[in-house]
Amino acid sequence: MFEFELVAQSNLARAGVLHTPHGPLLTPVFAPVGTQATVKAMTPIQLKDLGASLVLANTYHLYLRPGDTLVRELGGLHAFMQWPGPLLTDSGGFQVFSLSDTRKIDDDGVTFKSHIDGSMHRFTPERAIEIQNNLGADIIMAFDECPPPLERDYVLQSLKRTHAWAERCQSVHRRADQALFGIVQGGIFADLRTESAQFLRALDLPGYAIGGLAVGESKEQMHATIEVTNAILPEAKPRYLMGVGSPEDLVNGVRLGVDMFDCVLPTRLARNAAAFTRRGRLNMKNAQYARDPGPVEAGCTCYCCANFTRAYVRHLIVAEEILAAVLLTLHNLHVLLSLMREMRAAILEGTFENYAQAFLQSYQPVESKR
Amino acid sequence: MFEFELVAQSNLARAGVLHTPHGPLLTPVFAPVGTQATVKAMTPIQLKDLGASLVLANTYHLYLRPGDTLVRELGGLHAFMQWPGPLLTDSGGFQVFSLSDTRKIDDDGVTFKSHIDGSMHRFTPERAIEIQNNLGADIIMAFDECPPPLERDYVLQSLKRTHAWAERCQSVHRRADQALFGIVQGGIFADLRTESAQFLRALDLPGYAIGGLAVGESKEQMHATIEVTNAILPEAKPRYLMGVGSPEDLVNGVRLGVDMFDCVLPTRLARNAAAFTRRGRLNMKNAQYARDPGPVEAGCTCYCCANFTRAYVRHLIVAEEILAAVLLTLHNLHVLLSLMREMRAAILEGTFENYAQAFLQSYQPVESKR
Repeated sequence: MFEFELVAQSNLARAGVLHTPHGPLLTPVFAPVGTQATVKAMTPIQLKDLGASLVLANTYHLYLRPGDTLVRELGGLHAFMQWPGPLLTDSGGFQVFSLSDTRKIDDDGVTFKSHIDGSMHRFTPERAIEIQNNLGADIIMAFDECPPPLERDYVLQSLKRTHAWAERCQSVHRRADQALFGIVQGGIFADLRTESAQFLRALDLPGYAIGGLAVGESKEQMHATIEVTNAILPEAKPRYLMGVGSPEDLVNGVRLGVDMFDCVLPTRLARNAAAFTRRGRLNMKNAQYARDPGPVEAGCTCYCCANFTRAYVRHLIVAEEILAAVLLTLHNLHVLLSLMREMRAAILEGTFENYAQAFLQSYQPVESKR
Repeated sequence: MFEFELVAQSNLARAGVLHTPHGPLLTPVFAPVGTQATVKAMTPIQLKDLGASLVLANTYHLYLRPGDTLVRELGGLHAFMQWPGPLLTDSGGFQVFSLSDTRKIDDDGVTFKSHIDGSMHRFTPERAIEIQNNLGADIIMAFDECPPPLERDYVLQSLKRTHAWAERCQSVHRRADQALFGIVQGGIFADLRTESAQFLRALDLPGYAIGGLAVGESKEQMHATIEVTNAILPEAKPRYLMGVGSPEDLVNGVRLGVDMFDCVLPTRLARNAAAFTRRGRLNMKNAQYARDPGPVEAGCTCYCCANFTRAYVRHLIVAEEILAAVLLTLHNLHVLLSLMREMRAAILEGTFENYAQAFLQSYQPVESKR
């Protein structure tokens, strides 16, 4: 259970298989986010047809609504949301810090106000594991603090807490059918990331996440941090870059040895009329698409592009139809999931570096357009 | 083209086949409504999987947005919305009267304000047909006025106009691959309905609708009006009851000899958390379903009921997830489309009267609960 086989490598890029109680995960893998036990605008059948394998759900959200004990009562998260494949829950830490207006952190845990009804709640490492045990995902995450990445003093102080919490999580986690991953923190500071990766490595957990990135630092700082961290993390364990990302970040992450990713970007952008293409992002609401008889992306084989015109998709957006979100979500997830499959194939064929360079050369990130 | 075969009868109830350029329609048939060239929350694949055959779209909405000439440019409504089966467009008359704040009717047509941007527009019978010719549905409707059903003086005056408009529609309609249906009006007045049905019958159109019902009259008045009208309409032409309806109205309509129906009810209710069942309507947002491990309707074979619990569906509703609308739309359409298939089978087997009585006995309409 949770054995991780490394199948091929190409410089730092890795192709592997992570075995879970709900089937094998072929890595590198991108996990669509199902915040509230549903990937927004998708049915499980549509997700399966897209070739999604791993889905992430949010502990913070499900704890507040509908409640983790209700999910357990109904057979756990797999049964509740009818996702037959592997599931991952985060620890709730990130949401406590980003969504709650009022929160008070101490060495034992965090007291916070619900963003839904203002009621008060408390998460501790022990509670975060208990909730995730109730939810029953295949992969669960240690409770951590995600500090402002550039504030060294704060990051240093917070890191001690995050490490102590990781140990407490490990000591109370009991379900053998769930893998507890640790989360490396340390902001953008190489020495702190090294220290954190070494500390967590010593706990001998079945997998490790790189947390606290994609929260305001530069791309260069992000890449350097991934490099430093992966140099310490054990080769034989999966590496998970949390909250990433965009097409270019996925390619760069794989290039630096990351195996797993999750991000709301493809689904959130879809609900805001933006489409990924292999050359960059399009705003499908633009008037220039009003009479466009072509597909959202020429050559794309997804259900949206194989059937519908840009003119129709734009009409749905302007008319505020649910189908707009459905079609663009299908398309955006297809782009990212295909990208992951192509990267894996390139690693297996030994052509990854060429693939990555070609992709990054033709892809225009949003930042470069500003 | 547009031949209507009567296959079986059971008292007044009829089972038939209406041949269209996009395939045969087995009647009695219920058409889901795709107001803006999409049945809300459904992909065409999901509709097809539900066994939907006929889909209705609204001329008023598509004329305003994205525009009928754009739809024609892109290959017509079938290509635009990727619905391979038969399509029907209404004439726009009903929406002009119900959605536009400001409208001025004269004997030549109606001038109205767009509900979207306040711009002024004018529909005449000739224009309504031109727009519907551009949209390209298999079945198109004569431009009519839908008057307040209980105001005899107004209904009488309006009826003359509606009849003159029907003649004008017939004289300008040119596309042989589109069937122009007339619309019987006359409010709740038997003599006016008789006169209207006789007038339109004389035009020898390929099908006839009963308009101006389900807009405020009592159920008894609705049933009496259908009966009077169907007694005059030709046996060999399909009869279409517009804007109906609820499960009990569909059963009563078929019982009185109606062949076609359309209504936003199943899709609109779904987006408002209401589920049809064979016994009545449920409000799935109710707290009583919060921990309910059963399906929305026991025994139902739709995707929603075959896979998900009431607790999950309620969670999606409370969490305002798109999947709530998708699952309840799938369920509600499945209930109505199954009901139509069962009624047709019962007519063919000669057991319709028993079927209808059993259904109406166990079904509790919303009105009776108030």
